[in-house]
Amino acid sequence: MTHAIRLVGFDGDDTLWRSQDYFDAAQAEFERLLGAWVDLNDARVQERLYETEKRNIAVFGYGVKGMVLSMIETAVALTGARIGAAELHRIVEMGKELLQHPVELLPGIPEAVAEIAREHEVVLITKGDLFHQEAKVRHSGLADLFHRIEVVSEKDPPTYARVLAEFGLPPQQFAMIGNSLRSDIAPVLALGGAGVHMPYHTTWAHETEAEVAPDSPRLRTVSGAHELPEAVRALSAAVPA
Amino acid sequence: MTHAIRLVGFDGDDTLWRSQDYFDAAQAEFERLLGAWVDLNDARVQERLYETEKRNIAVFGYGVKGMVLSMIETAVALTGARIGAAELHRIVEMGKELLQHPVELLPGIPEAVAEIAREHEVVLITKGDLFHQEAKVRHSGLADLFHRIEVVSEKDPPTYARVLAEFGLPPQQFAMIGNSLRSDIAPVLALGGAGVHMPYHTTWAHETEAEVAPDSPRLRTVSGAHELPEAVRALSAAVPA
Repeated sequence: MTHAIRLVGFDGDDTLWRSQDYFDAAQAEFERLLGAWVDLNDARVQERLYETEKRNIAVFGYGVKGMVLSMIETAVALTGARIGAAELHRIVEMGKELLQHPVELLPGIPEAVAEIAREHEVVLITKGDLFHQEAKVRHSGLADLFHRIEVVSEKDPPTYARVLAEFGLPPQQFAMIGNSLRSDIAPVLALGGAGVHMPYHTTWAHETEAEVAPDSPRLRTVSGAHELPEAVRALSAAVPA
Repeated sequence: MTHAIRLVGFDGDDTLWRSQDYFDAAQAEFERLLGAWVDLNDARVQERLYETEKRNIAVFGYGVKGMVLSMIETAVALTGARIGAAELHRIVEMGKELLQHPVELLPGIPEAVAEIAREHEVVLITKGDLFHQEAKVRHSGLADLFHRIEVVSEKDPPTYARVLAEFGLPPQQFAMIGNSLRSDIAPVLALGGAGVHMPYHTTWAHETEAEVAPDSPRLRTVSGAHELPEAVRALSAAVPA
């Protein structure tokens, strides 16, 4: 008996739509802003920001608002509180712009999601800020293709196990599609599910921290959305009992 | 045929645990902080903050992080960007303290939830920041009593309708318990469900904006958690077909 794939999960950020590019741009502007106060050759601005963000995840969780608060904290620390209120306000405005950026779907995504949705039930499982993720789903034009939309605060094996239990599905019949080995692939493989990795050209350092056996029979890697339907079919045929 | 109540929903903030008190205290500290820069007799600090928060809900959603960002925006506007970076950093720290405050259950809540959970399935339906709400549920010690925990970005009729559809339950068999007429009672009554209003001694202005017929047969009002089990029983008996 084989466990054919019955449910396919899609990640949101950098799988369905562009996201990290905007964060990268905001962090570049953050560095320029600090250039008036610190020597950028010495200050390691991006490293210090990442250290602050990582430390603050336990308090803020993921998302734009937490990044903005970590930027303010980093700016105050790096400038010895000499930075002006106008610059700190500009950081808040950068966050508002990020939160209101139009949703830009990645090439081939609408067609790939529609094709997979004809053969399987599809759900969206996305991590981060509930309010921002729901806004992006609404503006993506894809909401109607998804049977369920789950915004979760962390993508780890217990979270996937809970979500699959709510769907009443064993992990063996589930495949997850996403750009992050850490969040989309490793925890699902660990539960006995399958994964399709679709790398994005830029990835937040945090999301690259994962261990995945590259030769797993339950893992496919694709170079773009047009290869997704075939990858899901191959997994559905190959997944052992 | 009567529709007995089969599922009881609890709100989180100011229903299960204290919340608005901490927001009120943070807003009082915010006003003191600004007192060094503006004349508090003229500046209408709290009104200006509430105006900013209300305008920003469409971008930030509810929760502590959005409040902190709105405080920074208000502080910069009210002081003409003269406020110092150290003060703005203090506002970020206030937010971190709010996010890490120990969960303080309201009097009689553990007993009331346990008693209602013996007679009905109970769920937690709470609004706001996903990460912070999940942390509070985890620290409340009540998580195991709830069949499901739903963090939603807005509590309006479409949201309750979606959640009840996921539970597979008609609204007529659902009762919601909470402190907010706007978020917990009015939208559930509008769908045909029942409500138990348990007012809290302090309520955010935003949550008082609601229209509810006070003499609805599907509404009970209680003065404390010890009255909740009896109110649910009365509703269960009184709800018409």
